[in-house]
Order: sequence, then structure tokens, then C-alpha cells
Amino acid sequence: MSYNKWGTDDEAKEISPSIQKMLGKVLGVTRPQIATEPPLVASRATAEDVQFFSRIVGEDFVSTDDAHRRPRARGKSYLDLLEWREGKEVSAPDVAVSPASEEEILEILEYCSEQQIAVVPFGGGTSVVGGVSPLKAENHRAVVSVDLSRFTDVEDVDTTSGLATLGAGLLGPHAEMKLAEYGMQLGHFPQSFPYASIGGFAATRSSGQNSAGYGRFDDMVREMTVVTPKGIIRPGKASPATAAGPSLKQLFMGSEGLFGIITRVRVHIHPIPEVKRYEAFSFPSFNDGVNALRAVEQSGAGPAVLRLSDEIESSVNLTSTDKIGENDEEEVKGCLAITMFEGTEEHAQRTHEETRNVLLAHGGTSVGEEPARQWEKGRFGAPVLRDSLMDAGALCETLETATDWANVPRLKRAVGKALASVLTEESTALIMCHVSHVYATGCSLYFTIVAGASDSVEETAQKWKAAKSAATEAMTLNGGTVTHHHAVGTDHLPWMNEEIGELGINILQAVKNELDPAGILNPGKTFSALNGFRGTLL
Amino acid sequence: MSYNKWGTDDEAKEISPSIQKMLGKVLGVTRPQIATEPPLVASRATAEDVQFFSRIVGEDFVSTDDAHRRPRARGKSYLDLLEWREGKEVSAPDVAVSPASEEEILEILEYCSEQQIAVVPFGGGTSVVGGVSPLKAENHRAVVSVDLSRFTDVEDVDTTSGLATLGAGLLGPHAEMKLAEYGMQLGHFPQSFPYASIGGFAATRSSGQNSAGYGRFDDMVREMTVVTPKGIIRPGKASPATAAGPSLKQLFMGSEGLFGIITRVRVHIHPIPEVKRYEAFSFPSFNDGVNALRAVEQSGAGPAVLRLSDEIESSVNLTSTDKIGENDEEEVKGCLAITMFEGTEEHAQRTHEETRNVLLAHGGTSVGEEPARQWEKGRFGAPVLRDSLMDAGALCETLETATDWANVPRLKRAVGKALASVLTEESTALIMCHVSHVYATGCSLYFTIVAGASDSVEETAQKWKAAKSAATEAMTLNGGTVTHHHAVGTDHLPWMNEEIGELGINILQAVKNELDPAGILNPGKTFSALNGFRGTLL
Repeated sequence: MSYNKWGTDDEAKEISPSIQKMLGKVLGVTRPQIATEPPLVASRATAEDVQFFSRIVGEDFVSTDDAHRRPRARGKSYLDLLEWREGKEVSAPDVAVSPASEEEILEILEYCSEQQIAVVPFGGGTSVVGGVSPLKAENHRAVVSVDLSRFTDVEDVDTTSGLATLGAGLLGPHAEMKLAEYGMQLGHFPQSFPYASIGGFAATRSSGQNSAGYGRFDDMVREMTVVTPKGIIRPGKASPATAAGPSLKQLFMGSEGLFGIITRVRVHIHPIPEVKRYEAFSFPSFNDGVNALRAVEQSGAGPAVLRLSDEIESSVNLTSTDKIGENDEEEVKGCLAITMFEGTEEHAQRTHEETRNVLLAHGGTSVGEEPARQWEKGRFGAPVLRDSLMDAGALCETLETATDWANVPRLKRAVGKALASVLTEESTALIMCHVSHVYATGCSLYFTIVAGASDSVEETAQKWKAAKSAATEAMTLNGGTVTHHHAVGTDHLPWMNEEIGELGINILQAVKNELDPAGILNPGKTFSALNGFRGTLL
Repeated sequence: MSYNKWGTDDEAKEISPSIQKMLGKVLGVTRPQIATEPPLVASRATAEDVQFFSRIVGEDFVSTDDAHRRPRARGKSYLDLLEWREGKEVSAPDVAVSPASEEEILEILEYCSEQQIAVVPFGGGTSVVGGVSPLKAENHRAVVSVDLSRFTDVEDVDTTSGLATLGAGLLGPHAEMKLAEYGMQLGHFPQSFPYASIGGFAATRSSGQNSAGYGRFDDMVREMTVVTPKGIIRPGKASPATAAGPSLKQLFMGSEGLFGIITRVRVHIHPIPEVKRYEAFSFPSFNDGVNALRAVEQSGAGPAVLRLSDEIESSVNLTSTDKIGENDEEEVKGCLAITMFEGTEEHAQRTHEETRNVLLAHGGTSVGEEPARQWEKGRFGAPVLRDSLMDAGALCETLETATDWANVPRLKRAVGKALASVLTEESTALIMCHVSHVYATGCSLYFTIVAGASDSVEETAQKWKAAKSAATEAMTLNGGTVTHHHAVGTDHLPWMNEEIGELGINILQAVKNELDPAGILNPGKTFSALNGFRGTLL
């Protein structure tokens, strides 16, 4: 993946002149300057560091070159991408190291603990919440990026139980390709799927677009291997369920590299479905659609995909740079819901029929297969579009939350209002929302924002920070979680105390102190930062 | 519930003379002496203690009387029940206190921390793994039993989202009765249902007989209120799912009173099902049945109940004292599977049809509704039968584990062999097994044992301890968890290091040190015992 945008150069697409004109007219956007390869802060790794790491992992897998440091310097949040456009010197890890075994990682962590070197694990680098940024504490003299890209084994595939052990460095498509050799699939398709890693999915509690049928990634994991400075731990080995005390697995899931480095996960896999079925529906209003989705989930009907766009998102096609905004003229009526069904022929048919009956009984109108197939085809495309829109001079980003069904209207209103209060001060902004993850007791709300950027990159960043802050504040005040599947990273830090309470923070800190007494793992990031300890950018 | 047996006096049933004769013939049992009300160790609570607790909770809710200490002295494991029959002085908590609010509990915990008094939370008292026993550390001068029976509110019922907050002291039937007023149900029916408490379900990761359709209790909980010596914490408030870090909720679930006292849980509730459907099936062998259950779970067909008895259990009716063993003559062929379906008319029908098709395709033969209805009718009866069998002179107990589907035959064989190696030294023993909890990747295995007791209660206890130890050892060596839903208690302590590893134990100890620095909560029990610290019986 390119260091300064989503996807590869091949995927990049330019907005058509007509869309560019429309963006100018509606959002008042102008094309900003695009910086080319801003310099990195010089590496602070010593010759001894490089020598030591080389002895452990082999010299081919240690680098202080800018070419290796640059892609490990930032994630893919809007603010990360803006920073590359600012043109100023960018901070980066001082050295990138790619170990091949748990034992090698353990040696690295022991050395870094002794040497006061901060450690940031690196998987796919797709964090959209500042999870990759190489923060360090003041007492740390350098930051090493520990890259998991050599952990790519698929081991112990058990097609009877539906289990396989996947290396943390496998990217989504590679994992699926290797499992397909056994006739199996993982079924985890977040928007980051093409570039995100298996270890990252576990470290951040990722949730895929088929979560209705396949569960969240934290539902899929049966066992993990984690290397901590205190040794290797394999939480969750008791499969498929246990009453043997608190769940350590659930403590490492979502730990975002703070307690240790996840190297392998044993996950639930499925036979590749015999059939797939598709159907899209239209609802007169978002609330009607939400009620219908709720009825489907609470009946247990069992679709693999169940999602709903609000009126504005339904009228805008976000999957293609050629088509964005063009649906305005066709005027899609109401709110679009997408359903997909998978499994055996019989299962897909039964779940399809039951789901359709429930949706129709709750005010839905079938609009056929095509919109659902189109959605599936374009479903990983939106992040590429963000870069195109940035190139075209627009501010574009997403944020997400979740709440109980009864609270959906209130939360959607509050977050939308908070975003608008900041983003529509000077001009119009597109504030779109969809439900993409459904549960028996509630659902996620995912917001996509397109607004005019300011002429200065710094001003634009400030504007987005203000909008994001207002929206997150609205979540905490209106019964939402600060993140449903993007994770904490650095961006959600200020709200973690509100989210889990002071005692909760203290518990996580106690676990961190036990496993990482030197405080080298992601120092200054996520939870520890709340205990009065703040890291500094390199 | 009676302190020295399961259920109430009304429920007690005597084994018929013909069964008694059969037990004598087959297992060589003789009727043992039954002790009547053995004395308790005298209370060590001081007048100041009683005065202090009375000031907090009111004097009506503090007692050092034997009548109040006796039912809080032991759980309901076979070893617990044997102890009452031994006739010797029995240890018991020194004082029973029943607070009515979180604030009162906090004051109690603060006092006990200062005064070095151990605290054992008490819900329904149904633990079958030594979870109730009033262990204390050597430095503690007394033990207080903190009774949750005044936490019986049902609050904030949200029928839209399917959520309600239940007091930890509500027993299963009371919770269901109160929810029924809203047309809702919890759907959690473990065998302990009539007497176990909501708080206990959460503290032990209970799993109900409808877990195929409704999930385990740890799946149902959205939020908890827990009082720790360091304050009140509400883990899991972000509903229905979140990526905001490690799951604190999953750390308190299964914590068995070690980190704090659970006072309320917000749980997922369901509309009372429109319909219920039933069907039983017979399979030529246990492995055939296991494969069929696996196919149902992996297809996603969605029954509410799915269980399978092995050949021996299928031939023995365990639900009624009048009928035990009598099926021997009728000779039930093969292995009996029970299915139940619930929900809307359409959902129950569709899941029933799909499940039936899968079971038939995997070698099942329908044997009609009746065995499934009979099972449902008698499903809470087995623990009462244990007392009847004890009265008749038999050793009778259960134990359970879980594993991946592919490992089921190996684990069943290993545990069965371990039990037989101890229990069939002198005479025959009935060793029965069933699958009662199914998951996509594996299932539980539940063993019921009936054997001849020795003439001496002490010898019988030793014999059972040896059998339990051999069986649990077999679990750890053959890919099983040491407990699928009975929890750790004191009985599974010796295997926890094997189950979660030394680093795992250290993590739990670090959390305990953070929340309970004086070490008053269940000292000497469960995990802390593994860190070289062993409690002593009063």
C-alpha cells in the first residue's frame, strides 16, 4: 500500500471534471497543494541497536532506511494522510525490524526493555485512529517498529471443527487464498480487508461487513499467541467455551499492542458457501428501516449481510469515482437496505425467505438483486475514493459508534448535529450514515462526511479535529460507544476514561505493569496515556 | 433450599424398593448412615463486628445464628453433601450479612479490608465445585457471608432493544416471572435454574440448556455492576458491541467473587416465544450423533435446544426416581438426541425443518415429540435424584468439559477410562455421557456417574476425589477444558495453572491486587491459591 494514501497507485482514480465542478459548486472545494515525499525525522537508532537486531533476525530484516521507515510512520486516518500533504518533516520509527518467530520477538522485547526503546507493532498499517503513529515516552531514546510480515503461516487446519491457526502478518486476501485450498473461508471482510492483517483484526476488535452471519473478529478467535516482555502467553486455549475463570483472551483482544505482540490466532473458519443470494430493499424512512433490521435480528432469521443507508447516503453512490453524486438526478427513493445470504442451498434459501418476509412485513419494498450485487462488488472501494476526494480538495472521513436499538434515533440525531455544527459553518457538508453491523440488542452507526477543505492543510486538520471531537462527545453523552470497530488508537484516547471509568483504566494499567514493567509497548498510546502519562511524538 | 441436599423437602423422593434392589445387585450399594444436623464451628465474629454490620444494613439483616450460617456453609457438590453426612463439626461463615445497596456493600468491604475479615459472596448457594465454602487466609480472623438476596429488582426493561437490568439476588424463576410481566423471557435454563441466582450465573459463566438458541450467560450480559474494595465499577456499558479496548466485562464474568461482588447485570432478553416445537431422534452410535449435531451447528440451522445422550445414558431414564434403570428392559436403541425450536411461528418452523433435514441426512431417525417433551418436563429433576441415590447408598455426581468437534471421541474415551479406572475397581459403575451445549467449533461433554459408595463416608469422599482427579487430569491431557460451565470454585484449583498458564495466573493476581489489595475477597480460593497462597478452612 502507498505510504500516503489508501491502496496502491494502480487503484488511484481521479474524480471526473463534472464531479469536481459539482464539489466546487455544492461544497465550495478548491484543489489543494499535494506535497511530494516530505522528509522524515532522522533515525535515532544506534549502530549497536542495528547490530543487535541484525543478530536476532538477520540483517536483511533490519532497516533504518527512509524507504522502510516511511510506510511504518503513519496509519490511514484522514489526519495521517493530511500530514503527508503538509510538507513538513514527519516523525517515523527509528528502525524497522521483521522477526520470524516468537522467540525472536521475545529477545527484541527484552533488549528494548533494557535499552528503553519503545516498541510499536506493525501489521497492515491500516489504522484509521492513529494506531500506527510511533509515539514514545520521554524516557525512551528511540522507537522500533516490529513488523509481523513474516508471520504468514496457516497451520493446523481442522476442517471438521472449523478451525485454523493464522499468522498475524497474513493480510486478509492471503489468509482467504490459503484457506480456500482447504475449501474453507474466514468470512471476515472489513473495508480494510485488502490491506489489513490478521493480527491487527484481533488487536483492534475488527468487525467485518458479514458480521451478521459470521460474527465480529473477536467472536471468531478461539486462541491467541502473544509475546509479552514477560514471556509468551496463549490465552483462550480452551475451545470452544469454558467456565474456567475470567477470559484472558478477551483481555488481549482489543489490547492494541499495549500488553504484547499478537503473533498467531486460532480462528473459526467455514466451508466456502455453496450458494450466495442477494436482495436489496427500500424503506420509506431510516427509522422504518432500522425497525425492520431489528425485527430480522430479533427473529433470528440469520442473513450474512444486513445493512441500511440513510436517505442521504442512499442517494449518493460512494463506490465509484465515476458515479459519486450522480444518483442525485435519478433520485433513489427512501433508504436502501442490502441483504446477502450464504451457506448450504437450503440454509441460504430459508434465511433469505424468512428475512424477506420480516422486511416486507415491516414496510420494505424489494428493489431486486442488483443493488446488493453492486454493493458487494464495490465494497472495498470507498477508502480509495477518499484520496480522490482529498485530491479534489474535499475533507472526507468516517467515524462510527454503536448503541441499543431503542437509542438509535437519538444517537444518530446527536452525532449528525454535532458534525453539522462544526462542518457547515461556512458551507454545506454531506453527512451520511448507515447501519452496517446488527446485533439482537442494537447496531452500529457509521458516518461518512464530505465537506469543503480549507486552503491550508493545518486549518483543515483543525476543522476535522473539532468535528470529530464534537461527534465523539455526542456519542458519550448519548449512549454510544466511542468506537464500534475502528478501535482506540490515539484518536479516541481523550474519551476512554468516560468509556470505561477510572477503575477500568486502573485495571488495564495493572495488567500492563505486570506484563510490560519497563513500559516499552506503545508507550504514550491508548490506555496508559490516561494515567497521567503522555507520550510525545518523536 | 435445604442446606444438606438439593431442592426443598417437598421435592425429595425415595427410590422405589425395586430400584433399591437393582442398585444393590448391580452396583453393590448398601444404605449408609444419614447424619442429622451436625454442629457448626462456633462463630468468631465479635460483638463489634455485628454492631458495625447492623449499623450499615439494619440488625434484621445480620446474623450469627446457626440457622442462618448453616445454609451458607456449603454448596451442593457431592463432596459438600457428603460432609453433612459425616456427622463431624462443619465450618461455616462467622456471620451472614444481607446488604440492600452497592453503597452498603462498599462500606462492608472497607470494614473487612481494615479488619482482616474474609468475604464470601452468596447468591443461590448452588455451586457444585466448592464455590461457596468459607475459606479464609491465615491472617483473617473471620469470614462474612455477603448475601445478595435483597438485590431483586428488575429495572429499565427495554422491550425494543431486548434488555433488562436484573438484581444479582434474583433466582432464575423469579427473574422469569418478573420479565413475563413484560411479555419477555431470559431463556437461561441451567439445571440449577430453580435455585441459582442471576449474580451467580455471571460470576461463574453459567450455561443454560437452551444455549444453542439463547447463548451462554456470558453471551447474554451487556453490562454489570460490581462492587470492589476500591469502588463501584460498571464494566461493559457500551452496548451491544465495542472496539474500545480489552473487555473488562469478560474479566469480571467468571471472576467468582475474587475481584468484587456482582450486584446487577444488564442482560439480553427475548419476547416469550410464540411457539415451541419438539422432536427427538435416534442415532446408531454416539459418534454418528455427534457428527449430526456438528452438521446442524455448522449449517447455522438454529435450534433452541440440541443435545445427545450416549448409549448408556439413552438406556437409563434419569429424570424420575420411579423409572431409573427401568428402560433397561425396553432397550432404547442407540443414542437419543433432543431438539427444541422456539420463536415466531415461521422461525420455529423453518429452523425445525432445516435441523430435521440435516439430522436425517446424517443418519438420524425421528422418534417423535414425546421424548423431547419428557426431557423438558424433567429437566431440573436430576439433582434431586442425586440425593435419593445417596440415600439409597450410591455415589452419584457429574462433571463436564468441552472440546473441538474433531477431538470429541478422544476426550470422551479418555475421561470415561479415567473414571472407570478408579470407580470400577470393586464393582460396576454407570458412567454416562451427553452433549448438552453445542457451538460451531465444538461441544460440551457432561458425565454422570452412579457407583457404589463405601460404608464409610470418608472412604467414599476419597474414592470420588480420586475419580474426579483422574478425570480432570484426562481433560487437561486430551484437549478439554477443566470446566465448561460449572466454574472453578475450589475443586478445579489444582488444574488452573495448566488451564491458563503461569502468566495467566499472574495477570489475574495483578487485577486482584489492584482491586482487593487487602486480599479479603474469597481468599484462598480459585486463582490466588495458585500463587503459593493457600487459604485454610475455618
